[in-house]
Amino acid sequence: MTEDRICGASAVAALFARRPDAVRRLFYIEEARQAAGPFCAVLARAHRPYRMLPEEELARIAGTIHHGGICAVAEARDIPLLDAAAPPRHQLLLALDGIGNPHNLGAIARSAAFFGVTSVLLHDVPGAAMPSDAAFRVAEGGLEYVDLYRTGDLARALMALQPHYRSVAATLARNAPSPNALPRDRPTALVLGHEENGVSPEVLAACRRQVRLAPRGALQSLNVAQAAAVLLYAFTR
Amino acid sequence: MTEDRICGASAVAALFARRPDAVRRLFYIEEARQAAGPFCAVLARAHRPYRMLPEEELARIAGTIHHGGICAVAEARDIPLLDAAAPPRHQLLLALDGIGNPHNLGAIARSAAFFGVTSVLLHDVPGAAMPSDAAFRVAEGGLEYVDLYRTGDLARALMALQPHYRSVAATLARNAPSPNALPRDRPTALVLGHEENGVSPEVLAACRRQVRLAPRGALQSLNVAQAAAVLLYAFTR
Repeated sequence: MTEDRICGASAVAALFARRPDAVRRLFYIEEARQAAGPFCAVLARAHRPYRMLPEEELARIAGTIHHGGICAVAEARDIPLLDAAAPPRHQLLLALDGIGNPHNLGAIARSAAFFGVTSVLLHDVPGAAMPSDAAFRVAEGGLEYVDLYRTGDLARALMALQPHYRSVAATLARNAPSPNALPRDRPTALVLGHEENGVSPEVLAACRRQVRLAPRGALQSLNVAQAAAVLLYAFTR
Repeated sequence: MTEDRICGASAVAALFARRPDAVRRLFYIEEARQAAGPFCAVLARAHRPYRMLPEEELARIAGTIHHGGICAVAEARDIPLLDAAAPPRHQLLLALDGIGNPHNLGAIARSAAFFGVTSVLLHDVPGAAMPSDAAFRVAEGGLEYVDLYRTGDLARALMALQPHYRSVAATLARNAPSPNALPRDRPTALVLGHEENGVSPEVLAACRRQVRLAPRGALQSLNVAQAAAVLLYAFTR
């Protein structure tokens, strides 16, 4: 796939704000005409097409009825390999170890962008969600405001990142401390795992620390997108 | 609708743990046979039907392909009116002012059950999500572990709750304090609003305080289910 379909007013606005040159075409329904105006002007200057369509036709192009009235078709986003020897330098770097559901990827990107976490490292393994139409839509622009990196070997990348980041894996292990019990003297690479299986054993072994949100009620598990939001909040306070 | 369809292993397990007498029928596919065993035994004793089915048939009964291999049909849950003069007494009570998306309702119930918040008050207004098949599925059992109440007039209910609870509305208002800046000397009724419109003006006027998760990045809005998780975490620490 060489094109992304980016739907919804917030996601389209973020796309035009961050990588207007990547937009190839824009479609919208009559109700979204006013919102689309400034974007059409950008495309007109670049001699790229835009068009108002009936809703059924937009749903066909968007591949979903959840198009929010507007859909941009953009050059697929390139996700560079992380150079672990010269990584982006922040207080917090988020690493995703095989999050499988694109809705979760989108939701996590939205929370990351909200909490000002601008670098997200994706473990490029089979089954891992990469930015897709659904992820862009759920992210509501969040994916545009984070720099994405990928690695084929997250365990190795975390080892290589150790001079710059203390790696912390989110787990359900009962003896893992809560976020506020962790030291903050060094930048943190926070690792979140797969929805069902959690952080993989190799990646867990590469992490220096673990962190856990302790259940305080009857239910023992939190959705990964909600856990991500809580941990991003806790680590950026 | 007088029956709930409750799908997925976690949600079904929670249903049997909390209100086994409400279960009328159980259906599952071959792959879920072992998990279904103990539930079938319960139903057999009560002379209620259970049956293994092909996946297509389960999808038809469940009304979704996201059935997780098992679906219980249960008596619809009764949601009592809140008696604001004699309310449940906790440190935190969660009130939802017109959350519209059943997935968000389910996700919030899951987080509430995780953080040990066991009373949830629903504002019963047009468009507000009430427990539904989708909400039960997303809650992964969380809806069984919270006591649900409803009110037709949340503003009035919050006023009546004032002897017991300090009402705090989650808002985007810039001058609202962050969760850790709020006093904790009294029990809190935390009010979350509609996905787009937030807490309604009447309800906001009835709240004693406001709380805000401050954006720390480029994106100004957090999904309500994620905001709920962060606030539940912050208020139960």
